[in-house]
Amino acid sequence: MNGPNLNLLGRREPGIYGNAGMDECLENLKVRYPMVDIEYFQSNSEGALIDELHRVGFDAAYAGVVLNAGAYTHTSLAIADAIAAIAVPVVEVHISNIQSREPIRHTSLIAPVCRGSIAGFGLESYRLGIESLL
Amino acid sequence: MNGPNLNLLGRREPGIYGNAGMDECLENLKVRYPMVDIEYFQSNSEGALIDELHRVGFDAAYAGVVLNAGAYTHTSLAIADAIAAIAVPVVEVHISNIQSREPIRHTSLIAPVCRGSIAGFGLESYRLGIESLL
Amino acid sequence: MNGPNLNLLGRREPGIYGNAGMDECLENLKVRYPMVDIEYFQSNSEGALIDELHRVGFDAAYAGVVLNAGAYTHTSLAIADAIAAIAVPVVEVHISNIQSREPIRHTSLIAPVCRGSIAGFGLESYRLGIESLL
Amino acid sequence: MNGPNLNLLGRREPGIYGNAGMDECLENLKVRYPMVDIEYFQSNSEGALIDELHRVGFDAAYAGVVLNAGAYTHTSLAIADAIAAIAVPVVEVHISNIQSREPIRHTSLIAPVCRGSIAGFGLESYRLGIESLL
Amino acid sequence: MNGPNLNLLGRREPGIYGNAGMDECLENLKVRYPMVDIEYFQSNSEGALIDELHRVGFDAAYAGVVLNAGAYTHTSLAIADAIAAIAVPVVEVHISNIQSREPIRHTSLIAPVCRGSIAGFGLESYRLGIESLL
Amino acid sequence: MNGPNLNLLGRREPGIYGNAGMDECLENLKVRYPMVDIEYFQSNSEGALIDELHRVGFDAAYAGVVLNAGAYTHTSLAIADAIAAIAVPVVEVHISNIQSREPIRHTSLIAPVCRGSIAGFGLESYRLGIESLL
Amino acid sequence: MNGPNLNLLGRREPGIYGNAGMDECLENLKVRYPMVDIEYFQSNSEGALIDELHRVGFDAAYAGVVLNAGAYTHTSLAIADAIAAIAVPVVEVHISNIQSREPIRHTSLIAPVCRGSIAGFGLESYRLGIESLL
Amino acid sequence: MNGPNLNLLGRREPGIYGNAGMDECLENLKVRYPMVDIEYFQSNSEGALIDELHRVGFDAAYAGVVLNAGAYTHTSLAIADAIAAIAVPVVEVHISNIQSREPIRHTSLIAPVCRGSIAGFGLESYRLGIESLL
Amino acid sequence: MNGPNLNLLGRREPGIYGNAGMDECLENLKVRYPMVDIEYFQSNSEGALIDELHRVGFDAAYAGVVLNAGAYTHTSLAIADAIAAIAVPVVEVHISNIQSREPIRHTSLIAPVCRGSIAGFGLESYRLGIESLL
Amino acid sequence: MNGPNLNLLGRREPGIYGNAGMDECLENLKVRYPMVDIEYFQSNSEGALIDELHRVGFDAAYAGVVLNAGAYTHTSLAIADAIAAIAVPVVEVHISNIQSREPIRHTSLIAPVCRGSIAGFGLESYRLGIESLL
Amino acid sequence: MNGPNLNLLGRREPGIYGNAGMDECLENLKVRYPMVDIEYFQSNSEGALIDELHRVGFDAAYAGVVLNAGAYTHTSLAIADAIAAIAVPVVEVHISNIQSREPIRHTSLIAPVCRGSIAGFGLESYRLGIESLL
Amino acid sequence: MNGPNLNLLGRREPGIYGNAGMDECLENLKVRYPMVDIEYFQSNSEGALIDELHRVGFDAAYAGVVLNAGAYTHTSLAIADAIAAIAVPVVEVHISNIQSREPIRHTSLIAPVCRGSIAGFGLESYRLGIESLL
Repeated sequence: MNGPNLNLLGRREPGIYGNAGMDECLENLKVRYPMVDIEYFQSNSEGALIDELHRVGFDAAYAGVVLNAGAYTHTSLAIADAIAAIAVPVVEVHISNIQSREPIRHTSLIAPVCRGSIAGFGLESYRLGIESLL
Repeated sequence: MNGPNLNLLGRREPGIYGNAGMDECLENLKVRYPMVDIEYFQSNSEGALIDELHRVGFDAAYAGVVLNAGAYTHTSLAIADAIAAIAVPVVEVHISNIQSREPIRHTSLIAPVCRGSIAGFGLESYRLGIESLL
Repeated sequence: MNGPNLNLLGRREPGIYGNAGMDECLENLKVRYPMVDIEYFQSNSEGALIDELHRVGFDAAYAGVVLNAGAYTHTSLAIADAIAAIAVPVVEVHISNIQSREPIRHTSLIAPVCRGSIAGFGLESYRLGIESLL
Repeated sequence: MNGPNLNLLGRREPGIYGNAGMDECLENLKVRYPMVDIEYFQSNSEGALIDELHRVGFDAAYAGVVLNAGAYTHTSLAIADAIAAIAVPVVEVHISNIQSREPIRHTSLIAPVCRGSIAGFGLESYRLGIESLL
Repeated sequence: MNGPNLNLLGRREPGIYGNAGMDECLENLKVRYPMVDIEYFQSNSEGALIDELHRVGFDAAYAGVVLNAGAYTHTSLAIADAIAAIAVPVVEVHISNIQSREPIRHTSLIAPVCRGSIAGFGLESYRLGIESLL
Repeated sequence: MNGPNLNLLGRREPGIYGNAGMDECLENLKVRYPMVDIEYFQSNSEGALIDELHRVGFDAAYAGVVLNAGAYTHTSLAIADAIAAIAVPVVEVHISNIQSREPIRHTSLIAPVCRGSIAGFGLESYRLGIESLL
Repeated sequence: MNGPNLNLLGRREPGIYGNAGMDECLENLKVRYPMVDIEYFQSNSEGALIDELHRVGFDAAYAGVVLNAGAYTHTSLAIADAIAAIAVPVVEVHISNIQSREPIRHTSLIAPVCRGSIAGFGLESYRLGIESLL
Repeated sequence: MNGPNLNLLGRREPGIYGNAGMDECLENLKVRYPMVDIEYFQSNSEGALIDELHRVGFDAAYAGVVLNAGAYTHTSLAIADAIAAIAVPVVEVHISNIQSREPIRHTSLIAPVCRGSIAGFGLESYRLGIESLL
Repeated sequence: MNGPNLNLLGRREPGIYGNAGMDECLENLKVRYPMVDIEYFQSNSEGALIDELHRVGFDAAYAGVVLNAGAYTHTSLAIADAIAAIAVPVVEVHISNIQSREPIRHTSLIAPVCRGSIAGFGLESYRLGIESLL
Repeated sequence: MNGPNLNLLGRREPGIYGNAGMDECLENLKVRYPMVDIEYFQSNSEGALIDELHRVGFDAAYAGVVLNAGAYTHTSLAIADAIAAIAVPVVEVHISNIQSREPIRHTSLIAPVCRGSIAGFGLESYRLGIESLL
Repeated sequence: MNGPNLNLLGRREPGIYGNAGMDECLENLKVRYPMVDIEYFQSNSEGALIDELHRVGFDAAYAGVVLNAGAYTHTSLAIADAIAAIAVPVVEVHISNIQSREPIRHTSLIAPVCRGSIAGFGLESYRLGIESLL
Repeated sequence: MNGPNLNLLGRREPGIYGNAGMDECLENLKVRYPMVDIEYFQSNSEGALIDELHRVGFDAAYAGVVLNAGAYTHTSLAIADAIAAIAVPVVEVHISNIQSREPIRHTSLIAPVCRGSIAGFGLESYRLGIESLL
């Protein structure tokens, strides 16, 4: 699950986020983990992300959520509350190393309620997120 | 009017929010206050909550709004601006005692522009909110 | 139970606290809730307030305390400790909306140990405090 | 482009925002700058504002965006990220002088990624925003 | 009117407060201002100081109060509220220069509601306080 | 000497303060230190504690004061001033380990003017306080 | 009116301030606004800037002041007081986007007392300042 | 000795500073204290104020300096250093009650090195300053 | 590479760190990644950890370092400098979710100079660290 | 157990630490408590202190550790973690009154995980530490 | 180049600044470095210091500036901007050890833009400043 | 004496620390100051640095210590205590200008107890350190 502006991957600030897009990344993950049923959801709206967490969060068919909440990581207590409220485990991932960017990105409101956090490995962060849930 | 994650009442962290759902709560309120016409709106989206405040906020048919803005209480200056902009009075309510939870929940951005605040009485907080508007 | 300077109600800063005095308020409450035995105590002394909380706090004859601790709300950890120590539930009330006044009034030391808080409804706050205990 | 509560211009707190509405303002701008093709978008939703920035942000037909993000100016890192991600320049405008209002309005999260900022000239701020892009 | 520990003047930390006691100081003031009726009150209790402010504060026979609130200057919002509530003007005085002592003594909670402040002139500060009320 | 709420020892939050009351504790101390003349004073009033410190503080018959100022430890600059003003040494004691409780209890206003501090040993802290004065 | 170091424009840090000097800028403004009588004053001295503001500030011949106070923007409360004291409106301008530079440049002491602020458009900021006063 | 913007007294913000000018004030002081030789100096320049403090500061003909440093009170460590360096005592005065204005005016850099401080009595503050030096 | 107190794994606070020891963990890793040559180093000494980072840090035989710096994560700028100085990439791992523990553990001094960070997956965090380097 | 620079006792800043050395102190303790087997360890190295805590911390032969961690009290989270990890109780002692020294010495990272704290009694603090463990 | 109050060297607070004056210091420097052409400038005015930095700052005849900006070190962003703007290197020197004085003197606004800093060696600091430029 | 990571000089981040190693630097110093007996010590361990300071600190054969404590400058109160405890003067040096790097490097814990500080001159800082001790 991806948060705001991550639909622009590949087009947005390549110095920070790299040249590859999310499509390519998902393709690679499906090849690598053929036994896993990977679903993808992206929205720029805080409310839509919460709605989606609610939808999957009580459904035993989901083993977990790999969530890159983008900028909402640092400002959305509401998403953090949604994660705490649901039963399915959520793993926080970031493409860039958020601790080496601006101070506002050093604090994650969602980290305390996630199972764990992975940051700084580029698109590889998504793969490690899936690994952590297997 | 209810903010993010409050659609999960009864399913979410019962240690903090109790076992009863919002449906039951509304039923009780309608029985208790038969002369009051109670309308219910819930959304996980900050924008939708603002839209709704605008819709009712200039309509003399509404005596007031009982608002539990959930996590947006602490992060949404935009909802606070909406409350300040409209003519209908808004009463802030919370199920839990927000002052005994994490520090980020000690500051309410909307309290200064509400008529008053009620927190910590469980679902009873909604009833007190209605009482305060009668 | 009322804290410092609340003996001046009706004489003090009517722009903030209104023109009605506490006597009138108590009269109204007794009329409204004839089945409730309402006792009133006011002191400007932190120690005397604590003594009184200790006196009623272990006495099963009291269903609860409606406490407007005035300025001590923001400076008295000792009153907060007294509330935490006693068995009778305490409800915090304020006449004015403390969140829309000076920053020092935004933090309540006693809120975390009270059952709940009610602020901003003028003398009506006392009535809501009693409602919450019924 | 206008953010939350700016659909209420003319109806909302005239002491701060004046009596004129946005329609009248746009009319005047079109008369004043007949050679410019002015498009208007307003939303109370953070996500919808981001979506719109993405839509216009890679389209060479747009010379720039004049953005009054309202309260989101001070809370939305996600909108700031959207501005940094797109190619079209964005100019930040405010009707009121945000530095003479409450402290929370003194910090703009979007200013660092905008081309420039204009604040405090009433609806005239929009005209100066357009001037700056010509 | 003197606050906590000022009954020890002449016995307490002479390096900061000097050797003269309050009795001698009052004697001198009465000689110097024979036409003024000077009354003296000292207490170590915050509540008793508030009670006294209430007693004199609505009595037109008093031209003003010269108040050295001692340590309560820096911790008592309740005394500040009492000063704001009464009609008689209050002048804040300090024997020592509070700005050159520990940081906790740099902030006066009562200064904003006093007519003015005088600090650092030893017992002479009391005389200047009286001068300011003539 | 004991400060606010310590008259409730044995009845108050046994998880933090234990089951034994102060009477039992004093009995034990008198048995253990028969050659010491132990006097006990408790008050919930800041002013009364200061009065008592003044009374014993210049009397050579007292070898020292073992003071548990309770919540006033963290809010009373006036008690700190009293300790600094008197001649008899004061030892600060606490039943609980104040550094492992809420942040407001991590700062002691009186510690800098006491001879020394002892915290966290339950009622044994009083005995260590007496030891330190022998 | 220009503050400290702005006499070096064109020679100083061209990466931030550009290559053009103030002479050229003034020439362009005079050509563009032939009906406006533009006067120029620059000083590195805080006192001289205040003197000049006093000189023009009560003279009805001046329609307004376009002020780039340079570093004094962030440190001079005295210039802010001068602006508040005079009758002629002052518009704050900056060549660079001060919100994207060091934190000390994010706070403007003069902004709250200016009519409005314009920042980040290079020398074009001066032109927009004049536009805003027409 | 007067600091920045105080040459505008009588013309500047009468709500805060009153209608009387400094000339009238000096006239009154000379009438009241005929035996004192009162000299007046005002400058908007921090450097000129320091120069003047140096000139009088080692001259035994001066009994003291009554200094209203205006806005430099809060920003000029250099003036504070000058006061600490000279031999003649300096008394800080303010027309308004600086503790009831904006937070930046609550901290005086010069207070710790002055003999004492007087604030809030209007132009009467100057007279009290002279009284304090007699 | 493991920092202070991690030699106690399996014996230390099992509620936070689990029951398994590091030996077992290493055994599992060697079985899972037979093609990787895993070396283990643990020290409680900041200096010894830096020495070891220097030893391996310029040796092309090492593909990377998986580092759990324990408490030094939050206090050792010297280890951060060592990581920045060497050529071999370092991945930061933590057994517990450091963002849900005490505030002092929310800031990692070494994160900004590591390739990436992984926290909260128990001993599985080490495996993910190795994955990230493959 | 003693931390950094405490090997210099008797040679180091006698105004703060006194003239007596640790040898003399240990001699006295052994005479006073002949039934206690007192072992002494001192190191300037954080790592060596942790190693020693681990060595004794799971050994039932030790009744407790009296620890003066010196400057590491205020900077070493790693020593605090070691204390929390071991089974043997640790008592924190300080020779000087750390609350009356520089602010950096007011915060003890190890206090929350020690059984209790004793500070300010000179070398007598060690004796009280032993008393507390008996 | 010397900033405010340094014209008083030898007369001012000898405990901090020593007894020797600047004349003597310059004499010694000229004897020690006969091949260097040493020019001296002192002013109490921030603006005059900036003017002088501009005058010498683009003149290749100057090898560097040894600057003791006195109190302006800590408050003048304008002098820092001047140093950043000019081509000639500037070395910051201080007579006293500014890190062991009041907190306001711990932060140097000019240090980041100087070539280097030298503090605490008395008048010898000037000699080391010249050494550093040779 | 050199602290952590300074053994890597010449190999480590040449953009900040330059290309020359410490060996070459020492060679140059010995040539330049043939009459001085220069001893060199480097360690990555805080404890070893303290041990060395103790060894030389009471030995009259040493005229002083030139100390670059590297990252420990900003985190080691224990090294600061060692410097304060010894008799031999210590001069703090830094290769880079620490005030223009990250905020954590702006505060030196050891500066207040050193004779003086020199920073920003590259390896030349060591030479100036020796100069200052001659």
